Amino acid sequence: MKTFFNVEDLGDLKVALSEAQEVKANRYAYQELGENKTLLMIFFNNSLRTRLSTQKAATNLGMNVIVLDVNAGAWKLETERGVIMDGDKSEHLLEAIPVMASYCDIIAVRSFAGLTDREQDYSEAIVNQFVKHSGKPVVAMETATVHPLQAFADLITISEHPIKGKRRPKVVLTWAPHCRALPQAVPNSFAQWMNVADVDFVITHPKGYELDPKFAGNAVVEYDQKKALEGADFVYAKNWSCPGVANRADYGKIISDDRSWTIDAEHMSWTNDAYFMHCLPVRRGLIVTDDVIESNRSLVIPEAANREISAEVVLKRVLESL
Amino acid sequence: MKTFFNVEDLGDLKVALSEAQEVKANRYAYQELGENKTLLMIFFNNSLRTRLSTQKAATNLGMNVIVLDVNAGAWKLETERGVIMDGDKSEHLLEAIPVMASYCDIIAVRSFAGLTDREQDYSEAIVNQFVKHSGKPVVAMETATVHPLQAFADLITISEHPIKGKRRPKVVLTWAPHCRALPQAVPNSFAQWMNVADVDFVITHPKGYELDPKFAGNAVVEYDQKKALEGADFVYAKNWSCPGVANRADYGKIISDDRSWTIDAEHMSWTNDAYFMHCLPVRRGLIVTDDVIESNRSLVIPEAANREISAEVVLKRVLESL
Amino acid sequence: MKTFFNVEDLGDLKVALSEAQEVKANRYAYQELGENKTLLMIFFNNSLRTRLSTQKAATNLGMNVIVLDVNAGAWKLETERGVIMDGDKSEHLLEAIPVMASYCDIIAVRSFAGLTDREQDYSEAIVNQFVKHSGKPVVAMETATVHPLQAFADLITISEHPIKGKRRPKVVLTWAPHCRALPQAVPNSFAQWMNVADVDFVITHPKGYELDPKFAGNAVVEYDQKKALEGADFVYAKNWSCPGVANRADYGKIISDDRSWTIDAEHMSWTNDAYFMHCLPVRRGLIVTDDVIESNRSLVIPEAANREISAEVVLKRVLESL
Repeated sequence: MKTFFNVEDLGDLKVALSEAQEVKANRYAYQELGENKTLLMIFFNNSLRTRLSTQKAATNLGMNVIVLDVNAGAWKLETERGVIMDGDKSEHLLEAIPVMASYCDIIAVRSFAGLTDREQDYSEAIVNQFVKHSGKPVVAMETATVHPLQAFADLITISEHPIKGKRRPKVVLTWAPHCRALPQAVPNSFAQWMNVADVDFVITHPKGYELDPKFAGNAVVEYDQKKALEGADFVYAKNWSCPGVANRADYGKIISDDRSWTIDAEHMSWTNDAYFMHCLPVRRGLIVTDDVIESNRSLVIPEAANREISAEVVLKRVLESL
Repeated sequence: MKTFFNVEDLGDLKVALSEAQEVKANRYAYQELGENKTLLMIFFNNSLRTRLSTQKAATNLGMNVIVLDVNAGAWKLETERGVIMDGDKSEHLLEAIPVMASYCDIIAVRSFAGLTDREQDYSEAIVNQFVKHSGKPVVAMETATVHPLQAFADLITISEHPIKGKRRPKVVLTWAPHCRALPQAVPNSFAQWMNVADVDFVITHPKGYELDPKFAGNAVVEYDQKKALEGADFVYAKNWSCPGVANRADYGKIISDDRSWTIDAEHMSWTNDAYFMHCLPVRRGLIVTDDVIESNRSLVIPEAANREISAEVVLKRVLESL
Repeated sequence: MKTFFNVEDLGDLKVALSEAQEVKANRYAYQELGENKTLLMIFFNNSLRTRLSTQKAATNLGMNVIVLDVNAGAWKLETERGVIMDGDKSEHLLEAIPVMASYCDIIAVRSFAGLTDREQDYSEAIVNQFVKHSGKPVVAMETATVHPLQAFADLITISEHPIKGKRRPKVVLTWAPHCRALPQAVPNSFAQWMNVADVDFVITHPKGYELDPKFAGNAVVEYDQKKALEGADFVYAKNWSCPGVANRADYGKIISDDRSWTIDAEHMSWTNDAYFMHCLPVRRGLIVTDDVIESNRSLVIPEAANREISAEVVLKRVLESL
C-alpha cells in the first residue's frame, strides 16, 4: 500500500477485517517489519486519539516515531506557489515536504479543511502535494475531506458486534447539531466505507447537508430522522457543516442548529436497540445526551480503541510494500 | 503497585530505599519488564524535571513513552458532568480517559491545583476520575495536593547523606516567600513522607499557612523560623499558598510576602551546618540566596537527579504488578 | 569529541567527509554505540530540519531521544545571575542545566541570537553555560553565532558534487534580502568551514554586512555581486542582519533591502552553471526565485538530507568519546 486515503486503498474489506483481528490478537508480532523504519507524523491541527493511537500502532510494529506539530515548534508554511514570501510564513511546503520526507520512511499527515473554499478543500491541495513531492508513502490522519483510519476503525467495531439473525445490519449515519462549523471528513469517509461494506446504509440530515456525491454514492438519504432510525442496528451520530453541494455559498456554514436532532433516549427507542457510535471528540448535550453515550449500547470507547488496530493494519501494509 | 499517590502506596520505606539504590547502581537491568509496555504521560500543566526524569526512567526500563500535552496539540477537556458542551471544551474527560487508557499500560498524570476552590482541589476530582475510569495504573506526576515522586526523591537524597553521630537527622520544612500563589502539593507530600521516615521533622511557616492535617499529621509546627532551624540537618525550603485550614476564604492566596523568611547565609548559620534542599524550580532571591543554593551544602541537583530513580522504582513496581 | 561548535572540533575534514560517506552508506551500523544512551535536544527556538534530522540521526545510532521545547511545556529560564526572580521566569539556567544534564548523556542545544546586544550574542553566554555547568558533551543545534551541523552538511553536499576539471571549486556565499532581521550563525559557520575546506571561497554582500573576522578569516570579500558570481561553481545564498563589525550601533539591523541581490536566472547566468545552495527555510521571491530553487542545479534538498548525516557523524564521535 503506497497511500491510504480511500476505501479502495485497502482492497478487499473482508481480508482487511480478518487482518485486523489477527493484528489485534497479537499486536507485537510484526516488529521486524518496522525495524529501523521511521514514521513521521505531521500535524497541522490538533489531535488526541489519532496522535496516540497511530504512535502506539507504529511502536507496536517496532518503528521509530517522530511527531511534528507544525504550528508549535516549527515554522508556518506557505502553500501557494509564485508568492513573494514577505509575510509570516517562513518556509514553503515545496521545500518542507521533500525535506521532511528525507528523514523518514512513511509520512502520516493531518491537515483539516479550511471550510471557506469548497474547491480548495475538495481538491485536497495540501495532502496531494505530500503525495507528489515526498516520494514516500502518505497516510491520511484526517485530511480536508477524508478520515479513513477512523472509518476503518468504525468498520472493525461494527464487524465485532454482529446483530443476531441479520446478515446485513442497518447502519444509520445521522447528522446532529453542534456549536462550531466542523469538516465533512468523518461522514465522508464513513459513508464511503459503509457503501462498500456488507451493511444496509442510510444517511439522515436536515436539507442542505447533502454529502458530496463522491462519498455519499448510492446511499439512501432519508430527511426524516425518525424514519431513518427505525430498525437501526447502529446509530452513527456526527455533526458536519454544510458541504455546499446544493448551494455552494453555504459551504462550511452552520445552516441548522436544530437540537431536536440530538440523540437522546427517545431517539434510541425508535431503533432496534441500536448501538450508539461516534468518532469522538463529542460534545455532550449537543450531539448526544449523557445517558445514551454512557449506556451499555455505546461503542465510542471500543471504536477509539480500534484506532490502534486500523492504524496498525495500514502501517503494516505500507511497511510490507517498502 | 496499582496507583502512586501517597507514601503508603510504596509500603515499607526501608525496602523502597534499598530498591532505589539497587536501581541507581544499574538502571538498565530491568528492561525486560518494560518490553512492549507503553507509558502515557499526560500533562495538564508545564513540567521540566518531571517530564524528563519520568521519560528517562521509563526508557531505562525498556518502555515506550508517549507524551501528551493536553493544552498544546490536543483538545481542551470538560471535567463536569451534565453540562451542554457548547463552550471552548470539545471533549469530555469521561470519554478522554478511557480512550487514552486504551493506548497504554500505565498512565502518569500531572494536573495542578486550581487554587480557587479548596474542596475541589482537595477532593482530587480530576486524578480520581483517571483512577476510576481508566482501568490502568495511575502514577501522580503532581496532582492538586500531592507530588509523591518528588517526596520519594527527596527521601532518597536525605538517606544518601547520613549525619555523623545521629541516627535520626533533624529535617525542617520551611515556608519561604514567593511572588506567585503556588500549590501545596510539594509540602503536603514532603510532610507526609517525613512523618513516616526515620527523621525528626519540624515544619515552620507564618501563621495561617498551616498545612492540611491529612498531610501535616503529628509533625511539630514551630512558628518561629529561627527556633525551628536551630540544629537542623536538612533545611527544605518551599513556598506554598494558604492551604485555607484556619480560614477557608484565604485558600490559595498569598497571605504573607515576608522576605525575612528567605533562606540566606544567616539562616543557615542557625543550623547544624545543614544541607539545603528545594524541589526546583526555585526563584533565587525570594526562596533562597545565590550563595546558599550554590554552596557545597546545597542538594538541589542531587535531589533532581534522584527524580529519575524515584520514578524508576515506582514504574518498575507498577510493571511488576501488571 | 566533547563539544561541537567550530570546524576545528571535527579535526581533519577529509577524514570527516570520508566518515560521512561511510555513515551514509550504512546509517544503522553503529547502534551498539547508542544503546542505553540518551540525547536531550533542548530548543529555545523553533526548528524543523534540525529537530527532525538530529532526532533521526540519534535514532539511527540506537540512542533514546528526549525533546524539550523550553518555551512550550517547560518554564521560562532566567539567565542572569544575582537577580531577584520575581518576574515571569521561574527557573534559573544555573539549576536547569545540571538538572537537565543529569537525565542524559549528550546535550544538543538550540539558542538563537537576540540580535540586540552584539557582545552578549558573540560571547555565546547561554551555550557556554551549558558547557560549563552540564558536565556533559554539548552539540550546537545553532547558537547565537554558529550552526556547525549545517555547515558540515553543506560541505558534505559540495564534496558530493565534484566540478569537472577543477580540483578546487569556486564557492560564493552571497547575501540576499529578507524581510526580517536574521542571525549570522549560518554565514559565520559556512565561512569558517569554507576557509578550511579545499575550495576557492568568496563572500559578497552590500557594504556594512561584513562578517565577524573570527569567521570571515582571510576569505575574499567582493562587494560587486556580479563579479563575485562570475565563474562560481556553487552559489550559497543567505540573508543575515548587520554583524555590527564596521558600526556596532547597526548590530542586528536590516541595513539593506536591495532586491537586486535576489538570486534569479540572470544571476545564475553569470556563474559556471553553478549549483544553488541554501540552508532553508528560504523565503521564495526574496532570497531566490521559484525557477532557480526548483531547477535541476538546486541542491537545497540534498543539503537538508545531509543534515541527518552530519548529525550522525557528530553524535557517533561524541558517543565514541564517552
